[in-house]
Amino acid sequence: MTTTDRGELRRLPERGTREWETIREILDAGTMASVGFSVDGQPLVIPMLYGRHDQNLILHGASASRIANTLAGGAPVCATVTHVDGLVLARSAFHHSMNYRSVVMFGTARVIEEPRRKIEALRILSEHILPGRWADVRGPTKQELAITLVLEMPIDEATAKVRSGPPNDDEADYARRCWAGVLPLSVRAGDPIADARLPPDIKVPAYMTQP
Amino acid sequence: MTTTDRGELRRLPERGTREWETIREILDAGTMASVGFSVDGQPLVIPMLYGRHDQNLILHGASASRIANTLAGGAPVCATVTHVDGLVLARSAFHHSMNYRSVVMFGTARVIEEPRRKIEALRILSEHILPGRWADVRGPTKQELAITLVLEMPIDEATAKVRSGPPNDDEADYARRCWAGVLPLSVRAGDPIADARLPPDIKVPAYMTQP
Repeated sequence: MTTTDRGELRRLPERGTREWETIREILDAGTMASVGFSVDGQPLVIPMLYGRHDQNLILHGASASRIANTLAGGAPVCATVTHVDGLVLARSAFHHSMNYRSVVMFGTARVIEEPRRKIEALRILSEHILPGRWADVRGPTKQELAITLVLEMPIDEATAKVRSGPPNDDEADYARRCWAGVLPLSVRAGDPIADARLPPDIKVPAYMTQP
Repeated sequence: MTTTDRGELRRLPERGTREWETIREILDAGTMASVGFSVDGQPLVIPMLYGRHDQNLILHGASASRIANTLAGGAPVCATVTHVDGLVLARSAFHHSMNYRSVVMFGTARVIEEPRRKIEALRILSEHILPGRWADVRGPTKQELAITLVLEMPIDEATAKVRSGPPNDDEADYARRCWAGVLPLSVRAGDPIADARLPPDIKVPAYMTQP
């Protein structure tokens, strides 16, 4: 990865890092990226599922879609992944904040054409979202592959930002009679909902109930 | 709101709507938007807290920040809010999907300068994130207001996309001996964590424990 002005940590640099381990952990904890690019000068930000292969983002879409084709055409991309970890409730409005982890990535996507590499990229994407799932399901047919555009985007540059911990109030405000602290937020899985046509003897697989 | 090609529902139009009620509900269920704009042709996507006032998005940032100033300068903006509601687990890799609700919005931000309107916009933002909080906390000082840039972005155009419900498998795949259905995902609040310096007799306020 390179370092340019794009990802410069101008605001609150103490919250930012370019360290790959931190970036990798944040990426591996998520499923959806907000993928931004320009079409005729108009920015577009689209939520897309993603996978990660080394320092590459794997994306996919319908071959016929404008989005996938704009990305395939080599448009500069900024993709952002954000986890909201909590509301930080300070004694002053000003010091309210969020606990979060985010990665802002820059790169340019390229199309994966070769069928075996394409299937492998889809497997990586699937395993990123739900490890263990791929082995259970019917793999893609030739026709399904043909109407799916699979993209890899080498992460040329990335910046992570993390805020955690309690509020930082002004000293004078600590005397205020107002609750202060953190309201933790997290994404949780509920009970699996079986498809109406699922035979009742097919049980929920272990990979869905592990954390 | 207007209707242009920017928000055109080319892919899976049955999942999309421009109906304001749906858009409003999705916006009111979230706290973070992925805000996209271009700087010298390079797209940037930044997670930002938001509030909503009628058909305006309220954003804020440090007066000195590049992001806030680029937005204040009238750059075309695309802001996206996404809620992930579940993994849709089909019998084929191809028909895997996500249940989600998203809004893609277009507009141009303008600075709110007048101090009373600025405070009111910050109140709206705060109440959007945690209704009831604003009345408890110390309001912004002149100095705090001066170093905060508050922006409103009229939503010129917006598109919501919603997917819900079970997987849609190919008829032949229903015979496959593979679990299928939905793994629901949602953002949940954990137990509030009191600040270390909070007097023990200050209890968690009701607005934090209501859903």
